[in-house]
Amino acid sequence: MKYLDFFTRRSTVRSFDPDKHISDTQLRALIEAASHAPNTGNMQLYSVVATRSAEIKAALAPQHFNQPCATGCDVLLTFCADLRRFEAWCRARDARPGFENFHSFVTSLIDTTIFAQQFVTLAELNGIGTCYLGTVTYNAAAISDILELPERVIPVITIAAGYPAGGKFPEPSDRIPVEGILHPEKFQDYTPEAIETLYRAKESLPESAKFIAENGKETLAQVFTDVRYPRELNENVSRSFETLLRDQRFMD
Amino acid sequence: MKYLDFFTRRSTVRSFDPDKHISDTQLRALIEAASHAPNTGNMQLYSVVATRSAEIKAALAPQHFNQPCATGCDVLLTFCADLRRFEAWCRARDARPGFENFHSFVTSLIDTTIFAQQFVTLAELNGIGTCYLGTVTYNAAAISDILELPERVIPVITIAAGYPAGGKFPEPSDRIPVEGILHPEKFQDYTPEAIETLYRAKESLPESAKFIAENGKETLAQVFTDVRYPRELNENVSRSFETLLRDQRFMD
Repeated sequence: MKYLDFFTRRSTVRSFDPDKHISDTQLRALIEAASHAPNTGNMQLYSVVATRSAEIKAALAPQHFNQPCATGCDVLLTFCADLRRFEAWCRARDARPGFENFHSFVTSLIDTTIFAQQFVTLAELNGIGTCYLGTVTYNAAAISDILELPERVIPVITIAAGYPAGGKFPEPSDRIPVEGILHPEKFQDYTPEAIETLYRAKESLPESAKFIAENGKETLAQVFTDVRYPRELNENVSRSFETLLRDQRFMD
Repeated sequence: MKYLDFFTRRSTVRSFDPDKHISDTQLRALIEAASHAPNTGNMQLYSVVATRSAEIKAALAPQHFNQPCATGCDVLLTFCADLRRFEAWCRARDARPGFENFHSFVTSLIDTTIFAQQFVTLAELNGIGTCYLGTVTYNAAAISDILELPERVIPVITIAAGYPAGGKFPEPSDRIPVEGILHPEKFQDYTPEAIETLYRAKESLPESAKFIAENGKETLAQVFTDVRYPRELNENVSRSFETLLRDQRFMD
């Protein structure tokens, strides 16, 4: 099997070279090639807004909780679940689309994600770094306003892209052992012993100890549940994103 | 930019070589490398069931509407949004997870899709063909029963994998021009003229004419709206998938 080492050693880039740019021609070529990724029924229910303007990036930044890479990247890409284009084509061809429902959103979200990840892989194979900003679904309505997204278009993934600062990618981050992920034939439930084994290496990392201390917690898991992804935040984001789905007629 | 041609020429494989196999070691290596794809907070909220058994494939086949590749593939991979492992770890570490909500499902769905697509790309770079089976969300509850998925684990993507029959990949399928997908700076709405331009090549393909005739329709768009993805089917799938999300406590 080829390419295993490249894919295993890849890493997220959060700090970009301000003097090295992805040209419009290059960006277009990467997006075009990425659009050949698999998608449902070849309907291509997605689009992407590529923002380079410092002014628009600055307007978007607070919606991404001012993560430095939102303004420090070369291009900020907002990938959208987009039913609008396909539905416009259907209506122009005497066809009555029936996509105002949750299933159509899920389909479009999956296809948009596949397309976005294909872009990331192509970028990385060409020495371009990327960072997913999960914050896009936290503030999807405000981001929609800034980017002037019309009806039936919802932002679902934001990716900051550019050449890595200092000319190199950071060290890769850890992953749990593949035994915890890959289930032969049917699902093999996790025993308490398996959980211990799967998370042991992660918990032993020096950065985990640092992370616990910085956040004043007792365990690494508590940093996730109490600080980074607390229930109240998850529930608030659920409500605002569900409201956007309803407003955009994905829950009719 | 490198690799553009490879990514543009890739294609979906629906027919597999019955005599050439992906070994367990190879599959494990591909899944392991794919797990280094980006994911939210490095929580890895996903898992994958790899089914080789003819008996289990046969049980799954009707849930995939008996698409031949469900039984004809070498390995049938069911990728799952999996909160179970992470929550088990949290509880073992005095942490109280707050992921019983829609936002956590969306996060997990995105991360599972990125992981699955990274597997597909690695497979293709190694001459292995794949086919996404969108039917997994149509019959997610029945598939969960067959694969014995426990609470907090939901199947979201199924991929049939194997070496292509006849030793080669099919011709790539068409895509709309990249101008229809890539929006500079902000969203540029689609004009009626743009819609005409974007879909002209697709509508001129000989297979489109064949597709219209076979389905007894007047336009290609009507094949999508009336035959392949009609409103009633989309609404039924929405209801059953939402019920599964509720049963699996993603809508508390």
